[in-house]
Amino acid sequence: MKLTCQKSDLLNGVNTVLKAVSTRTTLPILECILLQATTDGFKLISNDLELGIESNVQATIEETGTVALKARIFSEIVKKLPDNDVHITVDEKSYTTIKCEKSKFNISGQSGEEFLQLPNVPKENGILISQFKLREMIRQTIFSIALEEIRPILTGELIEFKDNELNMVSLDVHRVSIRKMDFESALQNMVVVVPGKTLSEISKILDADDEKDVQIYFSDKHILFELEDSIIVSRLLEGDFPKYEQFFSKDYDTLVKINKQELFMSIDRAALISRESKKNPIKMTIKDNSMIITSNTELGDVYEEIDIEKEGNPLEIAFNPKYFMDALKVIDDDYIHLQFTNPHSPCMILPEDGDDYKYLIVPIRIRA
Amino acid sequence: MKLTCQKSDLLNGVNTVLKAVSTRTTLPILECILLQATTDGFKLISNDLELGIESNVQATIEETGTVALKARIFSEIVKKLPDNDVHITVDEKSYTTIKCEKSKFNISGQSGEEFLQLPNVPKENGILISQFKLREMIRQTIFSIALEEIRPILTGELIEFKDNELNMVSLDVHRVSIRKMDFESALQNMVVVVPGKTLSEISKILDADDEKDVQIYFSDKHILFELEDSIIVSRLLEGDFPKYEQFFSKDYDTLVKINKQELFMSIDRAALISRESKKNPIKMTIKDNSMIITSNTELGDVYEEIDIEKEGNPLEIAFNPKYFMDALKVIDDDYIHLQFTNPHSPCMILPEDGDDYKYLIVPIRIRA
Repeated sequence: MKLTCQKSDLLNGVNTVLKAVSTRTTLPILECILLQATTDGFKLISNDLELGIESNVQATIEETGTVALKARIFSEIVKKLPDNDVHITVDEKSYTTIKCEKSKFNISGQSGEEFLQLPNVPKENGILISQFKLREMIRQTIFSIALEEIRPILTGELIEFKDNELNMVSLDVHRVSIRKMDFESALQNMVVVVPGKTLSEISKILDADDEKDVQIYFSDKHILFELEDSIIVSRLLEGDFPKYEQFFSKDYDTLVKINKQELFMSIDRAALISRESKKNPIKMTIKDNSMIITSNTELGDVYEEIDIEKEGNPLEIAFNPKYFMDALKVIDDDYIHLQFTNPHSPCMILPEDGDDYKYLIVPIRIRA
Repeated sequence: MKLTCQKSDLLNGVNTVLKAVSTRTTLPILECILLQATTDGFKLISNDLELGIESNVQATIEETGTVALKARIFSEIVKKLPDNDVHITVDEKSYTTIKCEKSKFNISGQSGEEFLQLPNVPKENGILISQFKLREMIRQTIFSIALEEIRPILTGELIEFKDNELNMVSLDVHRVSIRKMDFESALQNMVVVVPGKTLSEISKILDADDEKDVQIYFSDKHILFELEDSIIVSRLLEGDFPKYEQFFSKDYDTLVKINKQELFMSIDRAALISRESKKNPIKMTIKDNSMIITSNTELGDVYEEIDIEKEGNPLEIAFNPKYFMDALKVIDDDYIHLQFTNPHSPCMILPEDGDDYKYLIVPIRIRA
């Protein structure tokens, strides 16, 4: 292999593929980045068996070839090279030379024969979606995936195409998060569950620019994201995702309209007193025109009052403040609706109008 | 105690005094901030026995009084209060109420009787110095204080007034750092050793604005820094600081003029290869018009070349790259001078002109 590329292009590529390099593994080849120069161009490839990334790097190729280099040392060298032409040559023993201005590195590589190529996903079942919108939908749901692996399916997010809508859903035993958007596509009644780690890495690669799109393809076992200069392939999670709609009821006895930021700030302060012990939740007392938030522990006590508009019954109910704050943090609206039934039933957080999002939070029982 | 102050003023004060609050201590009172409202005004005080800080907070005092509050919960409450008037009241049992808009906290305090007042430093032996200049001198020397407590005196920095100069010196077994400035004062041949922790905390409080000064007073055992709204008192380290001038020789056999940034970048890259093991230093080969930096380990090898101007003999010498980079990082000059004698004697880093700084670095022996 013999090629020349720009340091900045090479660094972009390396930073992208680094997201699928294993750091803790018993298979040393998974700690490598594959450099592949063919007549089609120069590519970097990484694959940790769950997630695989290919990134194209603009290069002038004099000799094609392949080498697998330890990701850590290769990425650190690239990061610190001067901002200029980088010359990479690899000999038949995979001995690799990286030259830039008056700087020259020699490191040993591997032939790359052991390197696992990315799974093949046929470009059949596909959609096109704005990178910005996908990133927003991930941000607004990913916080409530389950972290424990007791039910592996819950460590992923449901992506569902139904009735010309795209739904993303995550849930654990304490809460459910749903984001919806109108979305016409040929994929009807299609459901996949994508690992949380994949969504978290992909959202770092997605552009904040609303003009750019990402093409997504689905196969039975994989999902493929196609961006301008890179391809990300992830395995899907197998198993049955809970029927999430069953957790939501259409009835409620108390409806509250409240300023989202005021509610967040008040819970954030009340959590200073409550957090010392999980047995000390925050208590919400819903009156005609105000919500009172209190907490009382060995640290002291706190009293917060917020103006609200209320329909229905007054109520006392208690929550783990973290679950409320996680949801409020990702909502962009100024005012939200809260729906309650009784002190033992979940609270639903909804927009004033429409159904772009729905968050459900299970309360904590308090003694009378 | 009963008073009203602005949240932003209170938060500034809290952030300042937090720097002298113990986090790991067997004396619970050291984890507190003392709130002291007297006819002179409202003050926050902290004291971890090595460092003590007093900060004045603008307040309207209705009733004088004193209370010691746990620093962690008090500072977190203040940080999260709305940006408005804060009302603090303390009853005779030190029960403390903090109110701001519709938010109210009650926390238990202590009377503050046990709280250790700051040591008294008479305002006799004093100097006035620019906050910016003092901050720069600390930044340019503090990195080479000794971290181990084998010789406690080396965990501090020497501050010396001599021949109308102010010198700051730090050293460990591998290196010496000296910053000098012209400084006329009545204090002649005065020497103190200030704990590194004190200098590191004070430099966070000092203003980057060159217009503002800090007044410094010295007593036998303490140093006091007086700023606009706060006072910082630290104990001094006792013992004999090494006679640092003895380490520097005026003779040299090789003088190199080199671009500081190029040298830093080359060593930074070479360190990627050398750092795996302390037994693998970087080697500098000084030729007539160039310096070659190399390193060679199981990771691979690196070759860096930098244009230089040289007087005297060629030389091969090896260093721990970290010690060189630490010094180069804090030097603002574009070009520097390096003085060498032989492969076993320290290298000196000096400015092209003048003697504002001197850094000495001990080499690592290499086999012939």
